[in-house]
Parts: sequence; C-alpha cells; structure tokens
Amino acid sequence: MEEKKYIIAADVGGMSVKMGLFLEDALLEKWAIVTNPGETERGQKHQLLEDVALSAREHLSNREISMSDLRGVGIGIPGPVKDDGIVLRAPNLHWGVANVREELISYLGTPNVAISNDANIAAMGEVWKGGGRGYDTIVMLTLGTGIGGGVVIGGRILNGACGAAGEIGHLPLRNDPEAKCNCGKTGCLEYYTAAAGIVRTARSYLATEQERSCLRDLTDITPRDVFDGAKAGDPICLRVVESFGDAMGQACAQVAQILNPQAFVIGGGISKAGSIILDTIKAHFVPRVLPALRDTPFCLAQLGNDAGIYGGAKMVLDAF
Amino acid sequence: MEEKKYIIAADVGGMSVKMGLFLEDALLEKWAIVTNPGETERGQKHQLLEDVALSAREHLSNREISMSDLRGVGIGIPGPVKDDGIVLRAPNLHWGVANVREELISYLGTPNVAISNDANIAAMGEVWKGGGRGYDTIVMLTLGTGIGGGVVIGGRILNGACGAAGEIGHLPLRNDPEAKCNCGKTGCLEYYTAAAGIVRTARSYLATEQERSCLRDLTDITPRDVFDGAKAGDPICLRVVESFGDAMGQACAQVAQILNPQAFVIGGGISKAGSIILDTIKAHFVPRVLPALRDTPFCLAQLGNDAGIYGGAKMVLDAF
Repeated sequence: MEEKKYIIAADVGGMSVKMGLFLEDALLEKWAIVTNPGETERGQKHQLLEDVALSAREHLSNREISMSDLRGVGIGIPGPVKDDGIVLRAPNLHWGVANVREELISYLGTPNVAISNDANIAAMGEVWKGGGRGYDTIVMLTLGTGIGGGVVIGGRILNGACGAAGEIGHLPLRNDPEAKCNCGKTGCLEYYTAAAGIVRTARSYLATEQERSCLRDLTDITPRDVFDGAKAGDPICLRVVESFGDAMGQACAQVAQILNPQAFVIGGGISKAGSIILDTIKAHFVPRVLPALRDTPFCLAQLGNDAGIYGGAKMVLDAF
Repeated sequence: MEEKKYIIAADVGGMSVKMGLFLEDALLEKWAIVTNPGETERGQKHQLLEDVALSAREHLSNREISMSDLRGVGIGIPGPVKDDGIVLRAPNLHWGVANVREELISYLGTPNVAISNDANIAAMGEVWKGGGRGYDTIVMLTLGTGIGGGVVIGGRILNGACGAAGEIGHLPLRNDPEAKCNCGKTGCLEYYTAAAGIVRTARSYLATEQERSCLRDLTDITPRDVFDGAKAGDPICLRVVESFGDAMGQACAQVAQILNPQAFVIGGGISKAGSIILDTIKAHFVPRVLPALRDTPFCLAQLGNDAGIYGGAKMVLDAF
C-alpha cells in the first residue's frame, strides 16, 4: 500500500485562515478563507472549523485527491493549545474552551489532526524550511502589532502545561507600573518592542529631546520610519533602535539563560527592517548572557506569512 | 535472561562526590568520596572520574554484584554538559573540555553512562521521587550560596545547545550596573536572591532604615536569621523577604511565560525556611503572568542532598 502523501495545513488568524495543500514536503497550492469564528450557544461547534474542513475537502476534490490519500491536517490557532488539542481560550476568535482536534476530526472524517498555537507552528515552519533550517531547538519571536513567541525543542513544538509556552510577548521584562500592556499587566516585553511600543518610544524622545529628526515631519510614525531613519543616521531614530534592542536583547538573554536554544529566529513585519534588527538585539544580548551563550546565532525568518502552513504540514509529517 | 538491576549514581560537587547504589528504583546505599579533580597535562584524564569508577567497583564488589549486573551509571557534573556527554567547562573542578562519558566508559567497562549537569539531575530526582512527583515538566531552582536551575520537559532533562539550559541564577533580571555578579555580568537573579544577596539586602535596609530589628544584634547575618525574623514579624526582615520574593517572583514569571512548566520546585538550603519562601515567591509571581499561568504550583524540594543521586539513577533507568 502506498503511503498517504497529501497534507492540509491551516493557520488561523483573526481576519483570515491561511491554508495550504502539500504533497509530501512540497507546497502545491495556498489560499485563504475568511475567518468566521461563529460559536453556537453551547460553544461546542465552531463555524470556522467547519469552514476549514469544507475548504480542505473542496481543494482536494478539485485535484481529484481522495480523502483516503490525506495523511492529515495540521492547524494553528491564535490562543493557548494544550498537547491534547484543547484550546483554552482564543481571544481574537472570541472562543472559550474548544476541543479543536475532536471537532475537526468529526468534520473531516480523518483522525489525523495535529494542532498547536499559531506562533508555535510558525516557529516549526521556520525550523523546517526557513530561517531556522539546520537547527532543531530554536526560539522564534514574531515582531508586529504584538510579539508572538514559539519554542521548538529537539524538533518538537513546546506547548507547555496549559498551552502558554512561548508567550514571550508578555514576559515581565521590567518593574514599571506605568508601562501598561494590553494584557492588563505592566512591564511586558510587548509594551516596549511591538509596533506601538517603538512608536511610543520615538514620540517620547521627540518630546523630550531637541535634536533634529526625520520623524518630526511625520504625522503618523511607523516602525519602518524609525528603522529607515536609523539606517540613514538619524540621531533620534538611532536612540529608538537602541532602546528597542536593549529590551529585546535582555528578553532574549533571559530566554537563553533558561532554554539555551541553538538559535533565535526573528520574524514578523518589523523584522523586514533586516540586519539592523538582528545587530541591535545581539549587541544588547551578548553582555547579558554567560560566555558559553554569547555565540548564539540570531537569524531572520524567511517564510513570511507562509511559516504557519509550513509548520502545520511539518506537524502532520512528524505525527502521522 | 534477567534484566540488569543495579545502578550507580554520582553527583559531583566541588568538595565531595555523593554516590548511590540503586536496586531498580530503590536506593540501597549512599556514600561520599572526596573530590579530587586532578587533571593531567593533556587534560584527557581526570582523577575524579577514575575515583568514581573505583568506588563504584568497590561498592558493587562488597555486595558481590558483578559488573555484568550493572545497568548503568548516571553522573551529574557542576558545569555545562551537552547531550553528547561533553563537559565544556567545570569551573569548580578547574576542568576545561572533558569527554566525561567516554572517560567513564573506559574506566568502568560499561557503555551505559548517562551524564548531565548537577542542577539538572537534582531536578530529575525531584520529579521522580521528590517535590515534583506527579509532574513531567518542571523547573527546579536551588537556592543556596548560588542559584542553580534545572529544567525537565516531558520527563527529560533539557541540557540545551551548549549545556547551559537552566542557568537561571544568571538570568539578567535587572538593568543595574551596580549589581555586580560573581560571573562578571550585572543584574543577575543570583546577585539578589542567593545567600549573599539576601544578607546584602538586609544590611542595606539596616543602614538606611531606623526601624528596630532582631538583625541589629547579630554580627553575622544569615538568610535563616532573616526568614526566622520575618516569621516573628520583624519589620526589616519582612521587607527583605518582600525584596527576595519580588526578584524570585519576577524570574519565575519570566520562566513561566517562556516554558509554562506544570510546576516549580524550590530547593537548596534557603528553602528550608519553608512555606514563607513559596508564599512570597508566589505573591510576586501571580500579578506578572498571564491569567492561564497564575495557578502554576510552587512546591518545596523533598530530597535534599540526595536529589542528585536519585536523578542520576533515573537517567539510567530512562536511557538504558
């Protein structure tokens, strides 16, 4: 009997679900469907998961691939996912506790469903085919409107006891009661280094310092303006980048002292600024770790928005 | 053929090597030998490891146990140990790079040698037979003259890419250039919460505050004096305990946001103060982690100085 070769991967986001069809380790086709989280009164059925199953069936059917040739489905959910496939809470989807694995199994008629957190499957994707290739133990940080974190140890995703491993955006970096994070805590890494944090730091320097800056002409400042300005030598932008690197470097140093990963992979929209991001993080990381850890490599993610579907497919390859 | 039932465990410290003989999962006998690290010119032979092998042979021979009935040897070394059994540096032993596994195999004539860092095998011991029983994913912190850390994930020790996982004593907790740690860095957890740090905090409060305190009568202050005083309501001692809890709670919160262990196990001499330690850490931990992590249990270690040999034996049971 021939081995089943096809894999469906789905990366659920707040607005859309990115999906992919893989033939063994190759991505054949990718597409997206609209996220419609709709929960029934009892919270036992989620329209979104039925939509994912329907879309998967449709794309398989278009290629005349039988469900019996499907090796499995790998899915990432924006919320804490335990090893048993239970999602405890997915704020962006307005979900409470959901047994995603069981539910998808019922819609798909295949028992081979692998599930994890969206940031974790992105980390897995980068290890498999992206910036983390060649490593099996990495920490990935995704820098955008929030800070996502994913941990892969020995080639396996670390979900953690309640699915919250890798929630590094909410690492309590500093004792700073004024630094009020959206999560309700204070002093979280995300407060300082996600997009809004970078802009906040820039505005604060602009208000307190007299130096010239390209940022003074802008109504809306974006992280991109800050990193572009720093590359051009703008003194205020350079200070904002230092401040960003200081927070990121310290957080990565904390991660390294605990986990000692083979490498860090940095992704997300902000990472598009390129090597300036890695350089400033590394500069602030090195003096804060023991000598043995100072050579830990920092790599840029390479798969962009496809990291999640690659990671979803890899979970299926590993599990079934 | 009957399964081999005997296990030798060794926990190498700077002064002595604790050793144990196990029959399956039961400790039959424990003893200690003096640590004599002596290294030859070429750094390829370590007297200490030959001493361990000789002592193991002697104790087996006294009980008329044949080497062929030995399932294996599990050993913990005070330094970073990689998965391949290479020790990169053991400052307390004045060792450079040492292939401990190969060397022990040659002295013992058995290929079944399991090795890890001393803090890691203590964590493993506590998971198996101590305060971490019932869990398979924990972080152990050993509070004494230094802060040791051990990480067990899914029942396996995490050594990390260069053997430095779990070096949580040198987690860069704060940006504080005056807080000079023995490791050469600044702001390390150990600087604040190991024995010397607790005493330093006490002396600083005594110098700057006018309040009465039982500590004022003492020439030498120990952490025990501080925790005993706090239990009796001494205001200065209570403030030192708060400061200790603040640093430990933040560090554990950082660990939890990254690893999400099922539990923390707190051991070492300082932990003998008992529940006051857990209570103050937990009080400062809870507000710094996401809601899903707030119920993470904190447990006291139970095996004391025997944790390491239990962990050494468990490594052998798992590996061979």
